[in-house]
Amino acid sequence: MTDGAPKIEALPQAGGEEGLYGLTSALVRAVRAALHRADAGELRELIAPLHDADIADLIERLRGDDREQFIDLASDAVSGEVLAFIEDDVREAIINQLDTSKVAEAISDLDTDDVVAVLEDLDPPQQREILEALPDQADRAGVQESLSYPENSAGRLMQREFISLPAFWTVGQTIDFMREDEDLPDDFYEIFVVNPRQEPIGTVRLNRLLRSSRPIRLRDIMEQELHIIPADTDQEDVGFVFDQYDLISAPVVGVSGRLIGVITVDDVLDVVQEEAEEDIFRLSGVQEADIYRAALQTAGGRFIWLLVNLATAILASFVIYQFSGTIDQMVALAVLMPIVASMGGNAGTQTLTVAVRAIATKDLSLANAHRVFGKETIVGLLNGIVFAVLTGGVAAAWYEDTALGYVVGGAMIINMLVAGMFGLIIPVVLWRLRIDPATAAGVLLTTVTDVIGFLAFLGLAGMFLL
Amino acid sequence: MTDGAPKIEALPQAGGEEGLYGLTSALVRAVRAALHRADAGELRELIAPLHDADIADLIERLRGDDREQFIDLASDAVSGEVLAFIEDDVREAIINQLDTSKVAEAISDLDTDDVVAVLEDLDPPQQREILEALPDQADRAGVQESLSYPENSAGRLMQREFISLPAFWTVGQTIDFMREDEDLPDDFYEIFVVNPRQEPIGTVRLNRLLRSSRPIRLRDIMEQELHIIPADTDQEDVGFVFDQYDLISAPVVGVSGRLIGVITVDDVLDVVQEEAEEDIFRLSGVQEADIYRAALQTAGGRFIWLLVNLATAILASFVIYQFSGTIDQMVALAVLMPIVASMGGNAGTQTLTVAVRAIATKDLSLANAHRVFGKETIVGLLNGIVFAVLTGGVAAAWYEDTALGYVVGGAMIINMLVAGMFGLIIPVVLWRLRIDPATAAGVLLTTVTDVIGFLAFLGLAGMFLL
Repeated sequence: MTDGAPKIEALPQAGGEEGLYGLTSALVRAVRAALHRADAGELRELIAPLHDADIADLIERLRGDDREQFIDLASDAVSGEVLAFIEDDVREAIINQLDTSKVAEAISDLDTDDVVAVLEDLDPPQQREILEALPDQADRAGVQESLSYPENSAGRLMQREFISLPAFWTVGQTIDFMREDEDLPDDFYEIFVVNPRQEPIGTVRLNRLLRSSRPIRLRDIMEQELHIIPADTDQEDVGFVFDQYDLISAPVVGVSGRLIGVITVDDVLDVVQEEAEEDIFRLSGVQEADIYRAALQTAGGRFIWLLVNLATAILASFVIYQFSGTIDQMVALAVLMPIVASMGGNAGTQTLTVAVRAIATKDLSLANAHRVFGKETIVGLLNGIVFAVLTGGVAAAWYEDTALGYVVGGAMIINMLVAGMFGLIIPVVLWRLRIDPATAAGVLLTTVTDVIGFLAFLGLAGMFLL
Repeated sequence: MTDGAPKIEALPQAGGEEGLYGLTSALVRAVRAALHRADAGELRELIAPLHDADIADLIERLRGDDREQFIDLASDAVSGEVLAFIEDDVREAIINQLDTSKVAEAISDLDTDDVVAVLEDLDPPQQREILEALPDQADRAGVQESLSYPENSAGRLMQREFISLPAFWTVGQTIDFMREDEDLPDDFYEIFVVNPRQEPIGTVRLNRLLRSSRPIRLRDIMEQELHIIPADTDQEDVGFVFDQYDLISAPVVGVSGRLIGVITVDDVLDVVQEEAEEDIFRLSGVQEADIYRAALQTAGGRFIWLLVNLATAILASFVIYQFSGTIDQMVALAVLMPIVASMGGNAGTQTLTVAVRAIATKDLSLANAHRVFGKETIVGLLNGIVFAVLTGGVAAAWYEDTALGYVVGGAMIINMLVAGMFGLIIPVVLWRLRIDPATAAGVLLTTVTDVIGFLAFLGLAGMFLL
């Protein structure tokens, strides 16, 4: 694949436009060369123009020993932002290499959501140690409270830095307050209006604030249509709400209804990407993105799904075993049976994938499951008939045996019909049982299509051909 | 699946928190009942509290005739925003039902990106008709220019409503300008600083503007680190840049380098979701989300991939056919051979899925393809050995034949090793050939694992067992 080094230069990054992305293959190679020469000056020069996100990507791409060398030579390049951008597995290795005080210092300038992202996957003792080294006590308490919310919840995603003001304040007061207060969030897009119980009652987008004259009160320009997110909301639902209502930021409230944080869209973009990827990976039996993991962990992570698959394959084999006598009389059946099973598996996977995504995007619910089921049954039947004719024709011509063709065709219709039905039934039932449909549905489905495929084909053959 | 209607009430929307999402199953049913009674008053009352995005979802969920009835009874609820939120296939049906002048009026208040989204999938004559009915000529020209950019490009995603000012303007001038100018974008998060050639040279986020005192010049507070997007950039790359650099909005330039538009993160959220879904769907051979399509179109859309799969299944059958004599002597081979093929297919799909996503997120490039290849080979070998022992053991015990166990095990190692290697090689080669790896890789891979699986198993059996 990397047969010609010079060609690499000519090929842009995957679909990338020059200049859109800071990190190029050539740069990675230059960095690696500088690391091998232990040339700290050259290294610094190479990474100086990079965005923190690109430095994070660069560190991810380095091999273990190069990575250690990088941290040795350029530990000041590892800012809090770089740590926040970096992938979990890699981050842990880096934090282990850095001093606790250095890590605490690096993350002390981050907003709480980023501090939480850096700390949440560390071992509890290490987490505690870094927390204790944080210079600001208020930060520490905030981070600890955020960490008390469940993983992947709104409480972990939110930042505690936000501006909330009473409704009777004027635009002028608000602007003066923002000019004087040093302790504002790094970046914000709206201010929240709260009542005396600190419950959010409205929001004023900054452009609205800028366009209004100074004596106007916030209550007169605030939008009251709020999408308030309880802190224990799952991040998948947070992503859904942002996507559904085109939000830029949203207020997060504790159990008492008090405003305790704000979630901004940049974090949600990561969530949406993560959740969609989770579905992709789960559908093909990968636990998570494992590209930066070592071979042994990767093999271990994929093992369970392969084991489950082995069990279902053995089950399918057992069906075939029951027909050993039939196959013994007609070897053609052994030749053709994988076709029927494979087509059912593929047709079912198509339905399954659409159903899993439709459940995730709330396009499929109990209100329309009935209708979609009817449709998928018809789709299965239609394609079943078409492929029955095609496959039956091929089989009949190949073995010059019309009856064999009919049997193949009949089995094909049965299996593709069943595939369409179970491709929908399985994820919907799993979802009602509150099991993630993406995780288990694929295995269950191919078990069904393999078993039905072999059973229908060999069974029909036993009845009509021998 | 919908065996007990009363239970539906008790079950919340998929993973949903009450109140986060406006549209409930109960509401959909109430709307349907109102439509059947042709009760326009009741209908209006039901949809009055809904967000435009929820009205769009509601219309999507209605069956064809209910949908027509809805438009008849409540056409004024179909605002420009509702049209922009609605899914393509459904939107077309609605626009056909509405008067051209009504559509033009509804979309005339939208920003250009939303107008483009509404119009881009219509037939050219219909598109032209609606464009000509747009009240504002400047809008019309802007939309037409946006439509001249390729589908799924930055030029289609951007809105032409933005604020660009020269660097010598002061904060005070800028704020006064925004208070006086009526013709501002609906919503914006930063203003762009341009040079006399109208090229973007910096950006000032609104919170920065608010916090600075009036006499300060924009040049002194602008950020110069810009992520400038050429208008012909593919939307996948736009999504990548927003995600990578946590952008809220980004300037879009034409070929001359002039600032012609701005892309905001809410549109990018849709893109990121869409692109990840595209990968999911392509990996399982579905062209696109087809849940709202009629059965016949759905069946047609999935047909091609099933046809390709049939061809590869027949190819695999042909391999088995070559060993008809071998199987005839030992039926156990027919019973066990699907296990070897299935395990290879699954292991390969795991690698393939990780590779396809890593290419999309730029975590896999030519710079590290070598290393990942080495890793996947080791992973394939490791799991191959584990499953060789397991499957070989089961086979030997089942048929009380140790030699058969060794043959199954040997074939398993070969196939899982090949699966790991080709699970990476196939997507990387396709990507270098500029073919979408998600579309074709799955079929190619299962062809390889089926052929190698059957060939290795039956070949080894022919050599050592007979």
